[in-house]
Amino acid sequence: MTLKETLARLKERTETIVSESELLAKLEKAQNEKRPLKVKLGIDASGPDIHLGFAVVLRKLRQFQDFGHTAVLIVGDFTGKIGDPSGRSKTRPQLTDAQIKNNVLRYKEQIFKILDPTKTEFRFNSEWSDALTSRDLINIASKYTVARIIEREDFSQRLKQGLPIYMHEILYPLFQGYDSVAVKADIELGGADQYWNLLVGRELQREFGQEPQVIITMPLLEGTDGKLKMSKSYNNYIGIAEPPKEIYGKTMSIPDTMIVRYFQLATNYSDAEIKAIEKRLAAGENPKHLKTL
Amino acid sequence: MTLKETLARLKERTETIVSESELLAKLEKAQNEKRPLKVKLGIDASGPDIHLGFAVVLRKLRQFQDFGHTAVLIVGDFTGKIGDPSGRSKTRPQLTDAQIKNNVLRYKEQIFKILDPTKTEFRFNSEWSDALTSRDLINIASKYTVARIIEREDFSQRLKQGLPIYMHEILYPLFQGYDSVAVKADIELGGADQYWNLLVGRELQREFGQEPQVIITMPLLEGTDGKLKMSKSYNNYIGIAEPPKEIYGKTMSIPDTMIVRYFQLATNYSDAEIKAIEKRLAAGENPKHLKTL
Repeated sequence: MTLKETLARLKERTETIVSESELLAKLEKAQNEKRPLKVKLGIDASGPDIHLGFAVVLRKLRQFQDFGHTAVLIVGDFTGKIGDPSGRSKTRPQLTDAQIKNNVLRYKEQIFKILDPTKTEFRFNSEWSDALTSRDLINIASKYTVARIIEREDFSQRLKQGLPIYMHEILYPLFQGYDSVAVKADIELGGADQYWNLLVGRELQREFGQEPQVIITMPLLEGTDGKLKMSKSYNNYIGIAEPPKEIYGKTMSIPDTMIVRYFQLATNYSDAEIKAIEKRLAAGENPKHLKTL
Repeated sequence: MTLKETLARLKERTETIVSESELLAKLEKAQNEKRPLKVKLGIDASGPDIHLGFAVVLRKLRQFQDFGHTAVLIVGDFTGKIGDPSGRSKTRPQLTDAQIKNNVLRYKEQIFKILDPTKTEFRFNSEWSDALTSRDLINIASKYTVARIIEREDFSQRLKQGLPIYMHEILYPLFQGYDSVAVKADIELGGADQYWNLLVGRELQREFGQEPQVIITMPLLEGTDGKLKMSKSYNNYIGIAEPPKEIYGKTMSIPDTMIVRYFQLATNYSDAEIKAIEKRLAAGENPKHLKTL
């Protein structure tokens, strides 16, 4: 397979790539230097259940592994252990080391249904974040502007509505971005709602004299309600480790208009196979039957 | 002298006090507990020349000393040593330890023309700021909102005009405010343009479970041009350690309309004495003569 062909496969069903030419250059360089690319994905240590929405990203990551690259999963234990000490915005649970370890164990069980464990590294961001001094932090902060941070949609919305944003909340994107510097990520993957955060990492790397990571976002899969994005908080998710009966029932409840979307984002079906399913649907085949494929 | 009388004296020629009732309560408590109040003043380690504008604040500080209280001068060596690492806004000189030490020595020579050295403590804020971990910083940051930081006039102006504010710049007020927590300041003094910064210290102390400092701002003395505030950057200042001939010449250049203002802010003349001078001016006495009083 040529690199152009590899690139075409990696592009499939992504939402945004910044940028394709950089991705091609990185693939080329990795091949020439006979080294795998580091493909970063941040995971949340607060809850270990993986649903089909997150699986969209994981399956893209698996594709990178199949092409010989390394998945670098960043467990956000630094921020997870801090929680939200102000207690004035929504209180986050402050996780203990033991809870995080346990969550990561349960995470691995599920994640390795999709990822190749031999090409997966787990890193805890407390490793480098805890070691940052106040001077280091000022140095990192000096590389990003306030305007760019508050242009992120949720922040600008809150400012407009007069809702408080605490100062540490606008530091979090910098810590997350600094993870990319710390692991020297070549690529970072995330859901489409992570686009802005992934850019921070890209720019911090440039500021720290590294080749900036390529960022790839994946579409957000709608939940079983067919409207909101799949999320544990909306209780519209299908967990990949749920009992088969549960998964079956939830799948049956998906609106028929979502069938093609789910095939695209939640399965490994090829475009041709999905086209065929689309035709059968259009021809009047019972949607229930297609859901059980 | 009763405490109310002391309060009346301390109020003289101030611009803002937040709040008078708290100041009275602190004076009372200090008297009952037979302990001096800590009156904080931040000083800039980057340039050691003291001019008449800053002397307005120092003379108020001296008044506190005369009532038995302690001046706590905070040398901002932490931020001074960092400078502005981004190099993208106005570059600040990165001071070395030796330069700071030398500046503080020259500072003392001048400052003790006004302050009582036996009631003056020098503290370097690197002492506690360097020791802050990234978690400590997040904890401090969690106690203040972005909206409150960017409502500071220079920040909001820059945002409006699309000029960059780097993230570390909005962290500085938190570091400065944390100085008040570190030294457990009872009162903080500053020029009127420091009002907003002093408030940060007040609020951080409250968040850290301390009794919040009273803040007192002093009017900004206009420079020898009679228009802009006296400042080294505007080159309209009279340094208190300049040669007498220089001081004489500069004083003569002050616009006549400024004479009363200078007597109010740059001398120890009583209100009654100043009233008398005002009368002499109104009666047509040669302003030059009054300037040499």
